[in-house]
Amino acid sequence: MGGIMTGCAHPATRCAAAAAILRAMNAYERLRPLLEPRVVAVVGVSRQGKQGAVFLQGLLDPGFRGTVYVVNPGASEIMGVPSFPSVSALPQRPDLAILVLPAEPAIGVVRECAERGVPGVAMFTAGFNELGTPEGTERARRLIEAAGGTTRIIGPNCMGVYNPRLGIAMFGGMPSRPGAVGLISQSGSLVQFIVNALADRGLGCSKAVSIGNQLDLTAADFLEALADDQETSVIAAYLEGVPDAQRFARVLRMTAARKPVVLWKAGRAAAGARAARSHTGQMAGAFQVWQGLARQSGAVLVRDIEELTDTVAAAAALQGSLPAGRRLAIVTGPGGPAVSASDACEESGLVLAELAPSTQDALRRVVAAAGTSVRNPIDVGMVLQGATAVYGESLRIALADPGVDAALVIGGDRSDPAAFAEMLIEARRTAGKPILHAQGGSFFGGEDQRARLAEGGVAVAPTAERAVRAYARLVTARNG
Amino acid sequence: MGGIMTGCAHPATRCAAAAAILRAMNAYERLRPLLEPRVVAVVGVSRQGKQGAVFLQGLLDPGFRGTVYVVNPGASEIMGVPSFPSVSALPQRPDLAILVLPAEPAIGVVRECAERGVPGVAMFTAGFNELGTPEGTERARRLIEAAGGTTRIIGPNCMGVYNPRLGIAMFGGMPSRPGAVGLISQSGSLVQFIVNALADRGLGCSKAVSIGNQLDLTAADFLEALADDQETSVIAAYLEGVPDAQRFARVLRMTAARKPVVLWKAGRAAAGARAARSHTGQMAGAFQVWQGLARQSGAVLVRDIEELTDTVAAAAALQGSLPAGRRLAIVTGPGGPAVSASDACEESGLVLAELAPSTQDALRRVVAAAGTSVRNPIDVGMVLQGATAVYGESLRIALADPGVDAALVIGGDRSDPAAFAEMLIEARRTAGKPILHAQGGSFFGGEDQRARLAEGGVAVAPTAERAVRAYARLVTARNG
Repeated sequence: MGGIMTGCAHPATRCAAAAAILRAMNAYERLRPLLEPRVVAVVGVSRQGKQGAVFLQGLLDPGFRGTVYVVNPGASEIMGVPSFPSVSALPQRPDLAILVLPAEPAIGVVRECAERGVPGVAMFTAGFNELGTPEGTERARRLIEAAGGTTRIIGPNCMGVYNPRLGIAMFGGMPSRPGAVGLISQSGSLVQFIVNALADRGLGCSKAVSIGNQLDLTAADFLEALADDQETSVIAAYLEGVPDAQRFARVLRMTAARKPVVLWKAGRAAAGARAARSHTGQMAGAFQVWQGLARQSGAVLVRDIEELTDTVAAAAALQGSLPAGRRLAIVTGPGGPAVSASDACEESGLVLAELAPSTQDALRRVVAAAGTSVRNPIDVGMVLQGATAVYGESLRIALADPGVDAALVIGGDRSDPAAFAEMLIEARRTAGKPILHAQGGSFFGGEDQRARLAEGGVAVAPTAERAVRAYARLVTARNG
Repeated sequence: MGGIMTGCAHPATRCAAAAAILRAMNAYERLRPLLEPRVVAVVGVSRQGKQGAVFLQGLLDPGFRGTVYVVNPGASEIMGVPSFPSVSALPQRPDLAILVLPAEPAIGVVRECAERGVPGVAMFTAGFNELGTPEGTERARRLIEAAGGTTRIIGPNCMGVYNPRLGIAMFGGMPSRPGAVGLISQSGSLVQFIVNALADRGLGCSKAVSIGNQLDLTAADFLEALADDQETSVIAAYLEGVPDAQRFARVLRMTAARKPVVLWKAGRAAAGARAARSHTGQMAGAFQVWQGLARQSGAVLVRDIEELTDTVAAAAALQGSLPAGRRLAIVTGPGGPAVSASDACEESGLVLAELAPSTQDALRRVVAAAGTSVRNPIDVGMVLQGATAVYGESLRIALADPGVDAALVIGGDRSDPAAFAEMLIEARRTAGKPILHAQGGSFFGGEDQRARLAEGGVAVAPTAERAVRAYARLVTARNG
């Protein structure tokens, strides 16, 4: 990276010393200036700024903990940020330049960045290989040439980097709570949607990157980096295709062996593949190949944002342990959702645990006689007072059964969701077995409470069926 | 029904005149006293009332537009409602008695209701056939005998009736907005969850009934009634099993020919079937039989609450017209969700419409040159000002293409969601083709706006994929 090349006039790829240093660094270190920049320049913000202003807002709004400049020849400041006529005129070398220019001028700015030794550019600019025209392809070639092997490119046709700990977002209003999920997405809009969906589940991101056309830096580069990133414990990726299939496969295997990887592959069907081509210029590749790749590596393949969010939540709740067991106990108040969760259990390859007679005896002392059940699903009935205690005791008894690998709790205590959450966290801690939680119809605790549950290792999902299917995906990915 | 039997001493089933009147009435009229009671008695509320109080709250909280009594020998009023020692001591004959007593005393009260000519009882009381014991079976027999053919039983082991127009709920805090969805659910908790999920989508219920063990009145009875109910235009049902399979099949065919029926069948897998048995005492039946039944009748089979809600929303938006066409146009701002929606389109049996060259030319004049697409999906790009106008014009052009049967719109205008909603409603009205809408990551308009969209015939779903799959289910149910 240019970021550590000070004093050497050679482009990094042609300098033997630099190459040796790069090889010795771990993959995360190599991309650190791009994912944790201390100086950022936004190039292409105008006074009437529309798109450029969006990116500037993404630095101002969360309060970027670094230095920001604008490059605009006609202004001395924009939105309170000092402006300079060119990248070379900036008082400091940026770690990351965000380019919001049309394609042709953007190529010139990339050349300028390379000359100044800027480690990375994130290019919102579209109009390259995704056009599917000879002109677009030729432009892509000239862009790579301009970068000269010293400046790494995120995109083009992407939204760049999100790092809530450092106060970098792609636009204003993104969640500010950092967390342990590392996100790679070919689509910029999906970064926002996924980050919001994770936040709604109480989960934050370590960093997220929108990778667009992957002309230079690819999914494999970021996968490798996140595998080495100590802030990241679960990796999620939305991909339409990859330009470096063999390397991607190798990196995916290495990464998934170290951390859970949840992979949303779009462009599976012919219609989706065609849409992917005009969206990010990707050849989607046969979906069977991706399925084989996931199976071999232990990555979990999902097909939409909800499956992705559910699975990431379940993986995060496991806190690094492996979900080996398929035998699920269900502890419920509402009856219908438990019947449906039992269906989902079997249909997704899990097993409704058979409770020992002694477990059933112990449960019989806790739950009422009518409108309940001590066989699995354990139905505590309609408990109107002391729900947390009845659920808690039933859950403790169920988890103590050696035939039970994990528990799904359906329902809760609307009068005191916080106490219910602490009961779940305590049961999780004591038994050391995974706990999934679905309240039933909707979430009635707030986002802070869901964050507390996530932190306490309890996976929350909007429905019991989704909780079950997410856990099943993890078990199946590990055990085939 | 007892409700119209005044003056005749015979039980309805043994009086020839009554039988003739009943045959002449439509199915809804026969159950009207139960679904639209004017006088309700809650039997089994105690002063320390827990469960009984729940049902009383369900009448007090929404402001029941009728007369309520409590039956409790030891009190003159409870929660401000006048109390009487027995059903026979009530100053008026109730249309519906809600029973919150243990099983044995409940049988006696049902006999008393039958003697007084009460048309219906809704029994929360559990402890009958769902126990799976000879005692439970014998009790069920005695209950039916006590009802004497004059008093119809909802349940037992159920939550009874919800009718927001009349101010009847199963507990406090249920949605108060009435609508056109008629709901039948074997599970009481799922009535609450489904009603909330529909409300979140801007949809209300005409009436909902929780049918529990179906010892007397069955799903077929309510299906038949809702088919005849003028307030109901879409029917949704959660069922674990039915005791009258042949009749149910016949009624389902007749009903689905008149109104969309969305059927969530639980107890599909062995584990779910076992859970259903202890939940509502149902034999779930082979799922293949249910699939065949749905195929023959044109009912839509779903497998969870989200599929149910999505499909009901799509069916309601069609406003009685048939979704004949499989050719979908996608109009989007965010790129990733459109790729994934294209996958969902093909994977669920729809077709991404091929736009005429003239349509593409017209679109080219509306959308920007870079980061967009005029092939389907129509990608309007990242529009920062005037999004509603750009989307609106693109949508109008797409719907005018004779090769397009329906449109999915992804995204919106966060700065003015109400204007965006009106644009969608106007496009729906003008083109007369179905419009599905998913904003992307989450709903950013409020519940009132979603109600406005529902009323305007636009189906709203949390994700593009779910919108597509719901529409596909309707098309497939109609066309095989």
